[in-house]
Amino acid sequence: MSLIAQTPKPPYYAVIFTSTQTDELEGYAEMAARMETLAKEQPGYLGFEAARNDIGIAVSYWRDLESIRLWKADVEHMTAQSAGRERWYSEYVTRICLVERDYAFSDNKS
Amino acid sequence: MSLIAQTPKPPYYAVIFTSTQTDELEGYAEMAARMETLAKEQPGYLGFEAARNDIGIAVSYWRDLESIRLWKADVEHMTAQSAGRERWYSEYVTRICLVERDYAFSDNKS
Repeated sequence: MSLIAQTPKPPYYAVIFTSTQTDELEGYAEMAARMETLAKEQPGYLGFEAARNDIGIAVSYWRDLESIRLWKADVEHMTAQSAGRERWYSEYVTRICLVERDYAFSDNKS
Repeated sequence: MSLIAQTPKPPYYAVIFTSTQTDELEGYAEMAARMETLAKEQPGYLGFEAARNDIGIAVSYWRDLESIRLWKADVEHMTAQSAGRERWYSEYVTRICLVERDYAFSDNKS
C-alpha cells in the first residue's frame, strides 16, 4: 500500500495545513490519530498525507468545497482545532486549493 | 524567521510534491539544497515548505502557472528531475493547485 494518497482525476481539492508546534505535546498524538480516523469517515474525503520535521505539513484531499466546509464544522474536529490553538500549535497556515492537474511517477528499481 | 512560507494574498499557486525514496540517497541532499536555492531565484517564486518521514512532502508556491512552467523546464532542474526518477525516488505525485483561500494562526504562548 502506498503512503501517497490515491486521488481521482482532477479537479478536486487539497487543504494544505502547515504548522509549527509548542513544547506542550501532551495529548497531541492521540488527537491527530483520532482526527485522521474521523476525517476518513467524512463525505467527500479522498486522501491524506503528512510529514513533520521542523515544520509539519498535512495535506488532506476532498471532492469539493462543501466537503471541506462540513469537515471544518464537525463538532469533534472543532474541539480539536480549538485545543490545537490553545496548546499544541505555535503557528499554522491553512490553504484551500483547487487541484487542477496532477502527474505521477512510479518505479520498481528499489 | 518563520519556517512557514510567507505567501501573498490568494489567488496564487502551490505545487505539492509527495514522494517516497529508494535506499540510494547518495547525492540527494546536495541536489535538494541546490534546487531550493535555484527555485528561489526563479521569477514568480513565492515560498517553499518541506518535511519528510515515511513520505516527503515539499510544497512550493508560485505567482502563476507560467512561473511553474518555466521552473519545470529549467535545464538544471530538468537534470535533477531525471536523476530523481533514475535514482532517488521510488514513487512521487506532483499536484498543481490554485490556492483560493488561506488563513493563519499565530500565538506567543510557546
